[in-house]
Amino acid sequence: MQDTPRPNPPYPADDPRFNKWRWQWRRRIAIAQHRYPPHLVLAGARILNVFTDELVEADLAIDAGMIVGIGVFPEATERLELSGRIIAPSFIDAHFHLESSLLWPPELARIVVPHGTGAIVTDPHEMANVAGLDGIEAMRASTLGLPLDVRFTVPSCVPASEHESPGARLSAQEIATMLDWPEAVALGEMMDYPGVLDADQEIAAKIWAARSKRVDGHAPGVRGDALQAYAGSGISSDHESVTLEEGREKLRAGMMLMLREGSSEKNLRDLLPLVTDATYPRTCFCSDDRDCHDLLTNGHVDEILRTAIGGGLDPVRAIRMATWNPARHYGMPEVGAVAPGYRANLVVLRDLASVDVEMTLFDGRVVAREGEMTTDLPKTVIPDALRWSVKLAPIRRSDLALRREDATRAIEVIPGQIVTRGIDVTPPGAGETVSPAIGEDLLKIACVERHHATGRVGVALVRGFGLTSGAIASSIAHDAHNIVAAGTNDEDLLSAIATVAGSQGGLVVVEGGRVLAHLELPIAGLMSDGPASDVA
Amino acid sequence: MQDTPRPNPPYPADDPRFNKWRWQWRRRIAIAQHRYPPHLVLAGARILNVFTDELVEADLAIDAGMIVGIGVFPEATERLELSGRIIAPSFIDAHFHLESSLLWPPELARIVVPHGTGAIVTDPHEMANVAGLDGIEAMRASTLGLPLDVRFTVPSCVPASEHESPGARLSAQEIATMLDWPEAVALGEMMDYPGVLDADQEIAAKIWAARSKRVDGHAPGVRGDALQAYAGSGISSDHESVTLEEGREKLRAGMMLMLREGSSEKNLRDLLPLVTDATYPRTCFCSDDRDCHDLLTNGHVDEILRTAIGGGLDPVRAIRMATWNPARHYGMPEVGAVAPGYRANLVVLRDLASVDVEMTLFDGRVVAREGEMTTDLPKTVIPDALRWSVKLAPIRRSDLALRREDATRAIEVIPGQIVTRGIDVTPPGAGETVSPAIGEDLLKIACVERHHATGRVGVALVRGFGLTSGAIASSIAHDAHNIVAAGTNDEDLLSAIATVAGSQGGLVVVEGGRVLAHLELPIAGLMSDGPASDVA
Repeated sequence: MQDTPRPNPPYPADDPRFNKWRWQWRRRIAIAQHRYPPHLVLAGARILNVFTDELVEADLAIDAGMIVGIGVFPEATERLELSGRIIAPSFIDAHFHLESSLLWPPELARIVVPHGTGAIVTDPHEMANVAGLDGIEAMRASTLGLPLDVRFTVPSCVPASEHESPGARLSAQEIATMLDWPEAVALGEMMDYPGVLDADQEIAAKIWAARSKRVDGHAPGVRGDALQAYAGSGISSDHESVTLEEGREKLRAGMMLMLREGSSEKNLRDLLPLVTDATYPRTCFCSDDRDCHDLLTNGHVDEILRTAIGGGLDPVRAIRMATWNPARHYGMPEVGAVAPGYRANLVVLRDLASVDVEMTLFDGRVVAREGEMTTDLPKTVIPDALRWSVKLAPIRRSDLALRREDATRAIEVIPGQIVTRGIDVTPPGAGETVSPAIGEDLLKIACVERHHATGRVGVALVRGFGLTSGAIASSIAHDAHNIVAAGTNDEDLLSAIATVAGSQGGLVVVEGGRVLAHLELPIAGLMSDGPASDVA
Repeated sequence: MQDTPRPNPPYPADDPRFNKWRWQWRRRIAIAQHRYPPHLVLAGARILNVFTDELVEADLAIDAGMIVGIGVFPEATERLELSGRIIAPSFIDAHFHLESSLLWPPELARIVVPHGTGAIVTDPHEMANVAGLDGIEAMRASTLGLPLDVRFTVPSCVPASEHESPGARLSAQEIATMLDWPEAVALGEMMDYPGVLDADQEIAAKIWAARSKRVDGHAPGVRGDALQAYAGSGISSDHESVTLEEGREKLRAGMMLMLREGSSEKNLRDLLPLVTDATYPRTCFCSDDRDCHDLLTNGHVDEILRTAIGGGLDPVRAIRMATWNPARHYGMPEVGAVAPGYRANLVVLRDLASVDVEMTLFDGRVVAREGEMTTDLPKTVIPDALRWSVKLAPIRRSDLALRREDATRAIEVIPGQIVTRGIDVTPPGAGETVSPAIGEDLLKIACVERHHATGRVGVALVRGFGLTSGAIASSIAHDAHNIVAAGTNDEDLLSAIATVAGSQGGLVVVEGGRVLAHLELPIAGLMSDGPASDVA
C-alpha cells in the first residue's frame, strides 16, 4: 500500500548510457534464466574459476560481449563445441612499456592477442619523453577498437632526471589530466625514488593527483627505512625486485609484487619461492620490456606462465595471478574472471600446463585462433608530429671532435646489464683531439640532441661495444631518446647519425659509408609502422 | 638542463586538502627515515602482516594517525612497550544493521571498540523504513568524530515490499544521493531478488547508481540459473548462505562470501569448510544482527574470530579475513593492514588464538584499554523528528475486534526461526467476534500503523507465543516497524500499545493493566538513548 507519494521519475531514464546498460542488463538476467537464447555458447569445456581454483565443466553463455551464465545452455544463436578444452580469463600484462616491442599498438595487438593476452597495462614512458601528452594521446587513439584492453599508467618521471634533454615533459597538471582518462589506472612507476625519499613537492602533487587510482613503484634495491618511506608515500606496487629478501620486504610493506619476466630482465624464477598460499593474492606477472622478436618467437604472458609453471607453480594459481590479481589491483571491475557479469575476454586452452592457446575471445567474439587473428584490426592514422620527431641541427665532423683533456674518463658497458660505469683511461694517440683505438676497444660515442635542433652533441670514449669497423646509431636511447651513435671512425658515425635522421628514427649499422642494416622507426623515433615480422 | 619552459604552477598549492595531506606526507617520509621522531612508537610487539601471514617482531611508528614505518624506532614523543603482545589491524564487521543493537551509534561504539572493532559497514535499513534519508543523515551525523570507522551501505529495498506500510521510502534518487557520500561503500543488500530476477527497472536504476561502488547481495537459497542472473546483475556479495553447497555456488559465481555469525543467525561453523587456500581471499565475516546483550557479554568481531578459530581456522588467516578482505572488497584504501601509509587503526592482543584484546587504537590514539573506553565520545543531539516517530491515531477496543470469518487462518511462529507460516484453525468460542483461547495457545496479534496516524489496525490469531496472561508490544517489527502487539486479552493489548506509544517506541510487557517491563526505544522507535548496560 502506498501511503507516501511515489517519487518521480524513479530512474535516470534520459541518460543514454543508462538506457544502453539497462537494456543489456535486462537481457543478461533474462538469458541466464533461459528466457532468450544467448548470442554465443561455449559448450562443454572445463571453466577455470579464479575464485575457487577449480575447473568445472559447464556451458558458458555470452551475450552482448558479457558472460551471462555458467550452467546448461542448449540454445544459442551460435554454439562452439569445446569439450576437452579449458576456458580461462584472457591474460593481463600488469606492466609493459609497449614501445619496447618497437610496434605501434594495432600491430602489437596482432601478435600478442593470439597468445592469449587480453589486457595490457602500459606505461608510455618512452613516448612521453619524445612527444609528451600529445604523443600519448595518439597512442591512446590507436588503441580504440582494438581487440585488446589497453590501460595506461601515467608516466610519473618525464624527464627521468634534470640531466636529461627529452623531447617533452609531463607536468603535474598534464598527469592529473591523463589520470582522469577512463583507461588510466595508475600513476606510472615512480622511478625517482630519491625524490620520494626527499619528499619532493612536485612528486607529492603527482601522487595526490592519483589518489583515487594506484601509484606504481620502481624501486630497485630500496629496502629498510627507505622502503618504509617509499611504500608509506602511497606507492603500492613494485616490479624491480631481484632477490628473495628484497621481494619479501616489499610484500611485507604492502606492495603488490610484480614478478618480471621480460626480454632482458628475467626475475621470475628467482622470485617464485615468494609465491605461497599466504602471498599469492599479492603477486602478479609483468614483462616490463619485451621485444618484437621475443613476442613473435616465444610469446607474451603465455610464455611467462609457462616459465612459472615450469618453475613449479600450480597452473590454475598461475593463471589467477595473470588475470584476477592485476585486474583487482588496478580496479578493472569487469575483467579477470569467468563469471556472470564479467566481460567475455577469454582464452580457450588446449592444454593447461603448457598454456597452449587455441583461441582468444574479446568482448564475446573469437578474435584469434591457432596463432592468427581472425578479425580485422582498425587502421590508425599516425599524426604527422609523431612522424617528424627527429629535429636535428646540421652535424659537422668538427662536432664529433673529442679533446684530449675530455678523454681521460670513458664509459664502460657491462655485459648483460643495463647499467654502465665510468673508468679511467689513457687517451690513445698523441694529437690535440683523440681518435678511437680499436685495439684497446675504445670507440667514440656521440649523443646528438634530436628533439629541438639545438645542435648540442656530447662525445666520449666507450669500451665494451667490441666493434672493429664502422658505426651504429639509434634513436632509442633511454630515457630521453636522443640519437646515440658509437663507432670506430667519424665518417661512419656521421653517416649512421644521418641515416637515422633520414628515416626519422631507427637503428642502423654503417661500414665504410655503406648502410649494412637499417630498421626504420619513424613513429617518434621509437616504433615501426610496419608489420611485426619485418621488425623482428 | 631545461630546454622547455617549466610548467607553472606544478602543483595544486591552493588546495587546502592537498596542503594538509602534503604536510603529513612529508612528515611520514622524513620520520620513516629517522629525520624526526614520530608521535607514537609501539615497541617490541609482534606485528601481524596480512600480506604474508607472518608475525614479525618490530617497532611500529605512528604519526598524525598514520602508520609511518615498521623497523627500529628508538625515539618517539610517546612510547608504549608492548613486548609479548601482538598488533593487528582492528576488526571490520562487513555487514551489520546497527539498529539491531538497540543502541545509538556513539553508545554502540562505546561497547564494540573495546572488543577491537575498528570499522563497521552498516546498512541502516530499519532507520530508513522509519525515517528515510533524514533518519540516516541523523545517524551519519552521530558517527562524526567517533573512534570507529562507520561506513554505510545504502538501503536498496525500502519499503521491503509493496505490501508494507513503512514510515518512509528511499527513492532511486535518494539512493544515488547517499551513494555519493564518502562513507557510502555500497548499495545495501538487494533483498528483492525476485525483482532482480524480473529485471525490474527501478532496481536497474539503483544498481546503475552504485556502478562505481559495490552492490551487496541478500539471496537466501538462490542457486542455479537464478543465482547466475542475480550475480550477473552486478551484485557481488552475499551473507545469507546456510549450506556448503549454496556457499560454494556463490563463491564460484564470484560473490564475496560473508560468513554470518549474529545473535540469532549463526552460519559460521557450517560454512567454515568453504574457507580454503584457494577461497580465503573471497571470504569475510559479518554479524548482520547482533544485540546489545550479546555484544556486551560475548563480544563482537572478536567473538566471531574466536568461533572461527575454535572451528579450526588459522588465527592469522582469520584476522586477515576480518580486516584486509572486507577493506579491499569495499574499497577502503587506507584500512585493514599494518603497513606504512595505512591508518593506525589497530588492536593490541595479549593472545592471538583467544583474540584477547588489550587495547584498541583509532587513528593512532589508544581509545580503549582493558575493555573500557579511554577517550570521551562526542555527544550527539538526536533530532526531534526521530524522537517523535510514533504517530498513532486513537485506538479503541473495537479496533481490536476480530470477526469469526477472518479467524479461520492463524499465524504460527516457528521456534528459533525468523519465518512464520499460516495455519488453518477453528476459531475458538461461539460469538460473532473471536477472543484468544489460551488453552489452545491462540492469542490475538495486532499490527497498528504508527508512522502516519492512519488508524489502520490489522488483527489476527497467532500460535506459538506461549503467553498465558497479559500482552506484549513492540515498535520494532521488520521491515516497516509498525507497532505489533500480542496478548491474551484486549485490555492488556490496548495498554501495551499505549505504553509503547507513550515512550515513543519500545518493548513492553503488560499484565492485568500493570506494566511489568518496559524498554524505552525513543529514537525512531528502534533505539535507546540510554547506556548499553541498561538496555542489555
